[in-house]
Amino acid sequence: MSYIEKYGHGGDLLTARQLFHKDTTHLLDFSANINPLGPPPRVIELLKEGMDSIVHYPDPAQRVLKQKLAEKHLVSPEQILIGNGAAECIALVILGLQPEIAGVSYPCFSEYEQLSAAYGVKIKPCYGKLANDFKPDHSELLQLIAETDIVFVGHPNNPTGVTFSRDELFEMAEQAEKTSTYLVIDEAFIDFLPIEKQITLLGELNRWKKVIIIRSMTKFYAIPGLRLGYVLAHPDLIAKMQEKQVTWSVNQMALIAGEAVLNEKEYEEATIALIDEQRSYVKHYIESNLRWRVFPGQANFLLVRTTDEITSADLQWLMGQKGILIRSCAMYPGLTNHDFRIAIRTEKENQCLVQALIEVSKEGSRL
Amino acid sequence: MSYIEKYGHGGDLLTARQLFHKDTTHLLDFSANINPLGPPPRVIELLKEGMDSIVHYPDPAQRVLKQKLAEKHLVSPEQILIGNGAAECIALVILGLQPEIAGVSYPCFSEYEQLSAAYGVKIKPCYGKLANDFKPDHSELLQLIAETDIVFVGHPNNPTGVTFSRDELFEMAEQAEKTSTYLVIDEAFIDFLPIEKQITLLGELNRWKKVIIIRSMTKFYAIPGLRLGYVLAHPDLIAKMQEKQVTWSVNQMALIAGEAVLNEKEYEEATIALIDEQRSYVKHYIESNLRWRVFPGQANFLLVRTTDEITSADLQWLMGQKGILIRSCAMYPGLTNHDFRIAIRTEKENQCLVQALIEVSKEGSRL
Repeated sequence: MSYIEKYGHGGDLLTARQLFHKDTTHLLDFSANINPLGPPPRVIELLKEGMDSIVHYPDPAQRVLKQKLAEKHLVSPEQILIGNGAAECIALVILGLQPEIAGVSYPCFSEYEQLSAAYGVKIKPCYGKLANDFKPDHSELLQLIAETDIVFVGHPNNPTGVTFSRDELFEMAEQAEKTSTYLVIDEAFIDFLPIEKQITLLGELNRWKKVIIIRSMTKFYAIPGLRLGYVLAHPDLIAKMQEKQVTWSVNQMALIAGEAVLNEKEYEEATIALIDEQRSYVKHYIESNLRWRVFPGQANFLLVRTTDEITSADLQWLMGQKGILIRSCAMYPGLTNHDFRIAIRTEKENQCLVQALIEVSKEGSRL
Repeated sequence: MSYIEKYGHGGDLLTARQLFHKDTTHLLDFSANINPLGPPPRVIELLKEGMDSIVHYPDPAQRVLKQKLAEKHLVSPEQILIGNGAAECIALVILGLQPEIAGVSYPCFSEYEQLSAAYGVKIKPCYGKLANDFKPDHSELLQLIAETDIVFVGHPNNPTGVTFSRDELFEMAEQAEKTSTYLVIDEAFIDFLPIEKQITLLGELNRWKKVIIIRSMTKFYAIPGLRLGYVLAHPDLIAKMQEKQVTWSVNQMALIAGEAVLNEKEYEEATIALIDEQRSYVKHYIESNLRWRVFPGQANFLLVRTTDEITSADLQWLMGQKGILIRSCAMYPGLTNHDFRIAIRTEKENQCLVQALIEVSKEGSRL
């Protein structure tokens, strides 16, 4: 049971506005994991200046952005597919590689399962255990890779924030090569982490033929309205995915933004520092004021489990009345109706959040 | 052979810029069929004002735009699917309805074939004949409907501008119902026609369970950079297509523009009048100054066949040197390397075009 996840995701402000009778400016959204700094101001300027270019088709091959991303990641443009959001990237991986059985480790991002089901792919699950903060057992994960055609792994995983060590990732990649299974590492949130460089397989991409990395540009740069993500993989795999992509799938505003954000070094550093500091703060403040369990995820969001007094649905409803949106996690396989996810935002916003959680937990226990 | 259709379509300005060493402001694009008035100024204003909303996800169900389109077309929102451009609409028709054999009548828009091939659907063709200005023989078309699972018909057809009478369309729809074949009528350019209301099946949509209408919003409102189209069909068919659509496929800027353009009555009337007048002018002027055949299409573009002296590729190259882009039609099955397509633009631009065609035809004959 949840209120605002009518279409399966957080960040649905229209549903929230209708439910809580508030307009967007009076809603504080912790239900979507977007950079709280908002888009870099220079990017908004460039988008406004470039608005006249919407009279032309976007480049069907996204040549400029692809070249820039290739330079950034030290790969060739043929190793990159640019998509209409990371969600389209996942769809194209499935449509392009045509697996029969996909392995997922619950709890995880719902689109792995949704899109697999939509395109006729069967799901083989494994479950991260509570005792291990939902991190999947390593041998089970290797087994899953052996028994399926493709495995999706969030890194960090949404909504748990679980990450893997490089050694673990190397073993997974080796197993994928050995058993001829595609290993999709969804790094949609990895750029928020100070340890990004230490835990991504991106630098080793050329070593593997079966490893596929998905990146999002909309979360870190706060432009989810424009849709922009990309896939990094061996050129043969990219070519197969490209065949399934609709022409002009990536719009012109997304291309302008994508090219512009790559120059935003200061913004990137400020974001990483802010999230790192504030995640500790939010975790600490919830743990010390409420007897709720905060899982030790490494991401720009936190998974929290309430005690018996209040469900995540009730919590979402009561917080919504205060204009604060949280993500109920009741619908994630492996989680319960006491689990919710919150994005990490600015210090002031996080203080509002925690204060409201404390107030509402008292009300909730009287429901 | 052609120069600028490297990715299969007109309007590729990046390729043109590189080929002809000119920047976008020095290129006059007749290779893409876009409203020459440009986007309505009020829409550009609203896009700039709404830019801050890109920090949020677009509505995954496009509720506001869907409701407005339902009111405009007097259908229910359940009869509408909004897509990331008409190209995504075609893809979702195929992915959602899973035909095995698709019928197309050449020459036609290449994506019917491309997307069918990409998603494993076999093509059964018929060919419009030169003697009939490429309009497919009616009985052949009915036969094609009987022998396939889905038939794609451009209306008006791109690049020929062929239209059908209501009687013909009714017979096609009856045949589709009778033989249990989906009939996809691609009306991407129909809103440019003064006779739109007389020749669309949209008003009769509720009579048919197999008829699917595709509309584009990017050509008429000159916003191809944003990507926006929609499908109208029976709710059961829409539901099947929706299942295959990637979440948030339609971006926020497209939604803002889509909602805004529906108030642009004056702009709509001015566009229709301009195109109607200028199409006659361009046709007449080419026919009276060059011995080239101009096909009598009803659309915002014209198909032209040169005489033996010059190929469409040479013509495209020479026109490109003057900064004018035309669409070579050599790659359309059923057409030849003497066929090209030109969009209808403003009076002044059309005069430039025809003048340049006359000059170039003289140079070309000396090649």
